[in-house]
Amino acid sequence: MSTKIRNIPCLITIFGATGDLSHRKLFPSLFHLFQQDNLNDHIAIIGIGRRAYSNEEFRAQVKKSIQTHVNNTKHIDKFMEHVFYHMHDVSDAKSYEQLLTFSNQLDQQFGLEGNRLFYLAMAPKFFGVISDYLKDFGLTDTSGFKRLVIEKPFGSDLASAEELNNQIRQSFKEEEIYRIDHYLGKDMVQNIEVLRFANAMFEPLWNNKYISNIQVTSSEILGVEDRGGYYETAGALKDMVQNHMLQMVALLAMEPPISLNSEDIRAEKVKVLKSLRRLEPEEVRHNFVRGQYDEGTIDGVPVPKYRDEDRVDPNSDTPTLVAGKLLIDNFRWAGVPFYIRTGKRMKSKTIQVVVEFKEVPLNLYYKTDKKLDSNLLIINIQPNEGVSLHLNAKKNVQGIETEPVQLSFSMSAQDKMNTVDAYENLLYDCLKGDATNFTHWEELKSTWKFVDAIHEEWSQTPADFPNYEAGTNGPLESELLLSRDGFHWWEDVQ
Amino acid sequence: MSTKIRNIPCLITIFGATGDLSHRKLFPSLFHLFQQDNLNDHIAIIGIGRRAYSNEEFRAQVKKSIQTHVNNTKHIDKFMEHVFYHMHDVSDAKSYEQLLTFSNQLDQQFGLEGNRLFYLAMAPKFFGVISDYLKDFGLTDTSGFKRLVIEKPFGSDLASAEELNNQIRQSFKEEEIYRIDHYLGKDMVQNIEVLRFANAMFEPLWNNKYISNIQVTSSEILGVEDRGGYYETAGALKDMVQNHMLQMVALLAMEPPISLNSEDIRAEKVKVLKSLRRLEPEEVRHNFVRGQYDEGTIDGVPVPKYRDEDRVDPNSDTPTLVAGKLLIDNFRWAGVPFYIRTGKRMKSKTIQVVVEFKEVPLNLYYKTDKKLDSNLLIINIQPNEGVSLHLNAKKNVQGIETEPVQLSFSMSAQDKMNTVDAYENLLYDCLKGDATNFTHWEELKSTWKFVDAIHEEWSQTPADFPNYEAGTNGPLESELLLSRDGFHWWEDVQ
Repeated sequence: MSTKIRNIPCLITIFGATGDLSHRKLFPSLFHLFQQDNLNDHIAIIGIGRRAYSNEEFRAQVKKSIQTHVNNTKHIDKFMEHVFYHMHDVSDAKSYEQLLTFSNQLDQQFGLEGNRLFYLAMAPKFFGVISDYLKDFGLTDTSGFKRLVIEKPFGSDLASAEELNNQIRQSFKEEEIYRIDHYLGKDMVQNIEVLRFANAMFEPLWNNKYISNIQVTSSEILGVEDRGGYYETAGALKDMVQNHMLQMVALLAMEPPISLNSEDIRAEKVKVLKSLRRLEPEEVRHNFVRGQYDEGTIDGVPVPKYRDEDRVDPNSDTPTLVAGKLLIDNFRWAGVPFYIRTGKRMKSKTIQVVVEFKEVPLNLYYKTDKKLDSNLLIINIQPNEGVSLHLNAKKNVQGIETEPVQLSFSMSAQDKMNTVDAYENLLYDCLKGDATNFTHWEELKSTWKFVDAIHEEWSQTPADFPNYEAGTNGPLESELLLSRDGFHWWEDVQ
Repeated sequence: MSTKIRNIPCLITIFGATGDLSHRKLFPSLFHLFQQDNLNDHIAIIGIGRRAYSNEEFRAQVKKSIQTHVNNTKHIDKFMEHVFYHMHDVSDAKSYEQLLTFSNQLDQQFGLEGNRLFYLAMAPKFFGVISDYLKDFGLTDTSGFKRLVIEKPFGSDLASAEELNNQIRQSFKEEEIYRIDHYLGKDMVQNIEVLRFANAMFEPLWNNKYISNIQVTSSEILGVEDRGGYYETAGALKDMVQNHMLQMVALLAMEPPISLNSEDIRAEKVKVLKSLRRLEPEEVRHNFVRGQYDEGTIDGVPVPKYRDEDRVDPNSDTPTLVAGKLLIDNFRWAGVPFYIRTGKRMKSKTIQVVVEFKEVPLNLYYKTDKKLDSNLLIINIQPNEGVSLHLNAKKNVQGIETEPVQLSFSMSAQDKMNTVDAYENLLYDCLKGDATNFTHWEELKSTWKFVDAIHEEWSQTPADFPNYEAGTNGPLESELLLSRDGFHWWEDVQ
């Protein structure tokens, strides 16, 4: 069965169309949607850039990108007929006048019914000015829907986020703003919700009576690469925790929504984020760990320390790793720590959730020295995609010794071949007008508030960086965070 | 780790040592225990039979059987030195005198400390007379332990079972009697208990709030083969339901025992069996289905109907299949049907438990026509050994459609190679004096009482046999048993 809503006519205007994100993700995703009949003939895409390209030149570039990223390029030429280029200076009024004329012309030509989606694949400093101009020059004054899609980061703290939000809200209403958090487009992140609410087994166990702790890891092997300039202003806290990590915590911890309607789901997520215990300075020191990678060896190759990376301050205190313990002060979760960690130059590239269940109340099987292994529910998000459950069972031995066994489901090769890119999911949601998997302003407010308290404390105390070797799982303090509570990070489990 | 208790000296006397069970199961199991150092030098085995064999002749036969059933026969000659033959007429006093002398002699020779285990691998009609003689001739008058191991059937109804029990109890105390139910020796049957009580996840769900029904199937493809004579007196009800099927139900339904001590576990099983709702004649007709196979085709080969089998009455009303709905009247299970079915000449050879969970209270994911699939916990006992869990997840599609996925654990090839035969488990338990996986008299009493009510009703109404085609899953009535309650047998799930 399918809930596909086809034939939504729309003009998709992409600012930053010559950039990396557009070429790697947006155009391949749009093409794939087109190919699968999720976009139809009533569609036009304007790629906007500063440089002077003809339509033909731009199309050639886009076609090449698609061919690089998509295996099956059937119908590619038909798709390219819907792609246009518009040379544009985002801070020049004249450009918007021309864009309006061109938009109206394409609207006529393709029968787009005035529906307009503006995708800002650009640095955040342009978000405000573009949305102002879009309104001022009448591009948002349309008979169809108008939607604004923006990429992170949305502000660099609560104050700047509020300022930016106020500015954008002059041109777009909250429900017209689609703030992308591409983790929310990942199939297995969306599965957190499905596993919890489409199975009768989990909800009864999903609380502080049966769960001892939840661990969310997003680790990278790569260092900062060529993003040193941006990364110096963000660091792991703002780049990862404020958005992706807290979003995953919200999905894991939310109450069952009254419906799957976007508003109802986001209302529950906001409730969780508001229930996050705000950290006093002393609690920040106790519950959050910052790290920055030192030189080390990855796959036998020496790699430099963060402070030696390109466009990084040699005395930088920017964290490349954050580990933290979150407490959710509500009835369901009181007393259950949510541990998060994310970092660059770690041991493996993994996005994974581990739900650790409490021990059996009466350990029938080992009254002696050996403990039973904990039951674990593991949601593998990347690179493996699947779910597994670690249980105790008797294997082939005389007696009653138990051994841990693993029940697992992985996306098959067939499934993986069809894996839908997060951006494809999200672009399609956008066209349908489904804002469920985008970040609401209320969520942003809560996450910035939470993260600001940590940043504030850290900015006042110098860091003892670098403090972890590249290619390791971070500083010792990250381990202590759990061991103090009697737990440990579940490493290398699937 | 291991709880092996080694070096238990013992004289093992097997009545019926030239029979099929001894050659196929008992000697290979004993050899395997010996090979793994679970039996030691202080062990002697007397094989008892009617025919005149020398030790050498008998050893040659046993050796050949072991070589047929065990891959690795290292140490086989050393093992054979512990095997002896004794020609014996079970109803002749003289035989027991000789057996006593021989036993005492082996006791001396091997240092057996007077420990004696008598295994009656014989027709039940001999159980009484042998145990009488064992006492009368002083074989049970020993300085060590004495234990009696008997095979099913134990009686043919409650009255005959009581009579037999009273007779045996003249020579052996209840705790010295090991009534074999070989299902209880199967690794995956033992895993029912381990899964339930060594994992924190299941116990909270294991009740009428979360489970909708439990299905226990033990099906065979084979017909009655050469056992027509015995089978005519038993049928599926007495051959399978009274013992194996009700034992599995007891393991699935029992309350957590206060310890893993044999007495505590059996006390909980007895409680469940006593809580089985006794069936009035009308309820028998409503809740139990009997079947007898007609001719049919198995793997393309025509097979005869039961009534045409060797040593079977051409008008036989013996059931070759039983399906039933059991209700357990206690707090945990009130309202949850346990469906059992067992039969010959069915579609597949399977022993399997399916635990079906209730539906999610609020079906968030399909408010429309399509129902979510039920969550299932499947315990595969034979031929596959493993556990699987059927859940709903989102696969790679846009939107929120869910699909059933299966988390599973199967014994690996490595595990299977080491699979311990049920008899090996049970013989070892016997030597250790662990009666957990044997049937207590109180269990027998309850199961016979339950089964007698059904047999009574059936014996008073002629059956409409044959009523299912060989190679099928039984008569329509077996399906109706569940469909009346809104359920269905889970076929072909793993």
